[in-house]
Amino acid sequence: MLAQFQTFIPPVRTLMGPGPSDVDPRILNALSRPTLGHLDPAFIQLMDEIKQLLQYAFKTDNQLTMPISAPGSAGMESVFVNLLEPGDKVIVCQNGVFGGRMQQNVERCGATAVMVQDTWGKQTDLNKLEDALKATPDAKAVAFVHAETSTGVRNDAKAICALAKRYDCLTIVDAVTSLGGIELDVDGWQIDAIYSGTQKCLSCVPGLSPVSFSQEAVEVIKSRKSKVQSWFLDMELVMGYWGQGGKRAYHHTAPVNSLYALHESLRILHNEGLSSAFLRHQEMHVALKVGLEKIGLEFVVDQAYRLPQLNMVSIPQGVDDAQVRSQLLNEYGLEIGAGLGELAGKVWRIGLMGYGCNKKNVDYCVNALTSVLAR
Amino acid sequence: MLAQFQTFIPPVRTLMGPGPSDVDPRILNALSRPTLGHLDPAFIQLMDEIKQLLQYAFKTDNQLTMPISAPGSAGMESVFVNLLEPGDKVIVCQNGVFGGRMQQNVERCGATAVMVQDTWGKQTDLNKLEDALKATPDAKAVAFVHAETSTGVRNDAKAICALAKRYDCLTIVDAVTSLGGIELDVDGWQIDAIYSGTQKCLSCVPGLSPVSFSQEAVEVIKSRKSKVQSWFLDMELVMGYWGQGGKRAYHHTAPVNSLYALHESLRILHNEGLSSAFLRHQEMHVALKVGLEKIGLEFVVDQAYRLPQLNMVSIPQGVDDAQVRSQLLNEYGLEIGAGLGELAGKVWRIGLMGYGCNKKNVDYCVNALTSVLAR
Repeated sequence: MLAQFQTFIPPVRTLMGPGPSDVDPRILNALSRPTLGHLDPAFIQLMDEIKQLLQYAFKTDNQLTMPISAPGSAGMESVFVNLLEPGDKVIVCQNGVFGGRMQQNVERCGATAVMVQDTWGKQTDLNKLEDALKATPDAKAVAFVHAETSTGVRNDAKAICALAKRYDCLTIVDAVTSLGGIELDVDGWQIDAIYSGTQKCLSCVPGLSPVSFSQEAVEVIKSRKSKVQSWFLDMELVMGYWGQGGKRAYHHTAPVNSLYALHESLRILHNEGLSSAFLRHQEMHVALKVGLEKIGLEFVVDQAYRLPQLNMVSIPQGVDDAQVRSQLLNEYGLEIGAGLGELAGKVWRIGLMGYGCNKKNVDYCVNALTSVLAR
Repeated sequence: MLAQFQTFIPPVRTLMGPGPSDVDPRILNALSRPTLGHLDPAFIQLMDEIKQLLQYAFKTDNQLTMPISAPGSAGMESVFVNLLEPGDKVIVCQNGVFGGRMQQNVERCGATAVMVQDTWGKQTDLNKLEDALKATPDAKAVAFVHAETSTGVRNDAKAICALAKRYDCLTIVDAVTSLGGIELDVDGWQIDAIYSGTQKCLSCVPGLSPVSFSQEAVEVIKSRKSKVQSWFLDMELVMGYWGQGGKRAYHHTAPVNSLYALHESLRILHNEGLSSAFLRHQEMHVALKVGLEKIGLEFVVDQAYRLPQLNMVSIPQGVDDAQVRSQLLNEYGLEIGAGLGELAGKVWRIGLMGYGCNKKNVDYCVNALTSVLAR
């Protein structure tokens, strides 16, 4: 016999980790509106608006722009399984956790990942990338992470794409943490395939992954010799449902309510405007930096390529990582992020994303850390 | 310049199609509670409860029981990509749309699907299945759909599994529309891998897929020679996060709010009790049947194996399918389902699922159809 289960009332939190970030209450409200059928004309109209708003956020005219009905990891997978076929070679730039996940994806497509490794916390080195491009004349694509959530590094997406294009490669970009937080220009930078997440700078609930594919990428998909290994993520099938206008073919049941939330989050971003949103992220980052440096915390990533939305600081010597984070959580309801992979125990990651990127959160975080570290 | 976008207020609907079904307002309320981090101790505790509640709903002690962070189609894919390796053979029983989707999944794993075809609207024929088992001594698994959403047929899961087990096959079951609506006994029937959806008889929002794997299935996964082709759906990685107790390894960001909703929906099912829920579905089906037959609508599926939650009726001669459905939608806010595949234009599918399976909906649907068909 099972115990009686109570309805779940989450404790009050301020989410300043690597994501999910604090979700805007307006978005939570939209999320909970009554569910429509996934073929309802009113819902189809909403899908068209989501597509337009995503084109705005990504800065692209790509027709193949939509949210994948699953988290960012599935968005990543959708890009690789659609563009790659067994035997292909992809140059993957890694300077953190998520470049490594790209490698996994490439290999699981039966393709080869040629790795360009850089130190975690540093940028991808363009010279190393060019060496790899020269050494791999048959490379099909260059894949990299725009905003490395594991370190807080901004890779130079524009320069990497320009270089890749000089060697006739497709460009594949992880924009999970960058979309809505820092400049991103899909068309201007010649990005061929990009995926993001909803739970970072869009301040939406986790669970969806906006993606966009260029015309060149679409041609690659259309001229595949083999079927896409994933039925769920096969873009030709997905497009039957998300295609512009006309008849919508049932593929899978869309996560209707999550799409209400995404629409609301993109609408809020659109109303604020991309450049205002980027400026706000930058200003709050500076405010946080001033506060944290005042209590002796040091940033790991060079200021020239530091992400404003993901602030990685060293844990001071003698300070117990887990204890501090647990005090912050239990006494302040404040979540900050631990280090991932080789950085575990060495750093904290403090997120300033979307709705959560505001002065109130900055002050609260600085004050809480000041108190806890003074013990 | 983009137009100003308005917040999306969905029109009022009654969802009596094949799903999503009407979502319980208590579940919509749970959905919109503030987001927690996916590693928050309070959220981890919720995950443990979800697992227990899913074990209750599936009637299983399987440790590997959890929701996949994506819709039912991804749940289906998770089962096939984890259990199959290239060269494997799977007997797939098809008597509707979703058996065909299983075939697609099997083939995209590099495996062979041996098809057992039956007429849409009839049950899978056990003799045909046994012939296929005899003719395919190296079959690894038998896969079938418990409740065919495209036709309203209940396949005899217990008998199919017993037969498959006599031939030493794994059993793979699509329970997208059956879970919570009709009897289902994962352990009692020796089901090795099962997937469902949240938007049918659980009355939850679409976007998650509860799955469960038997110990035998887990052994098959653990002894794989090749890596699972999907990183996102690799159960060994997923389990690092969903595993019982202990340390939770980050795999992907869980769809936190959707999981609040799933917890609430399972809690409601648990409070009602499985047998009461099944009885309610049966009683409402009978009430609907009486009402529909009074206006001359005929059920397609034999009563002996008709699903109470998915009622397929023939469209009377001379009646315009699209026009009727559009009148129901526009004048009554009532959604019923069209026919799929070879049944398009020939049938309607009327759902009575979970929260939406109530006398009010039955009366409303019968009255609306009565009025519209009398024109």
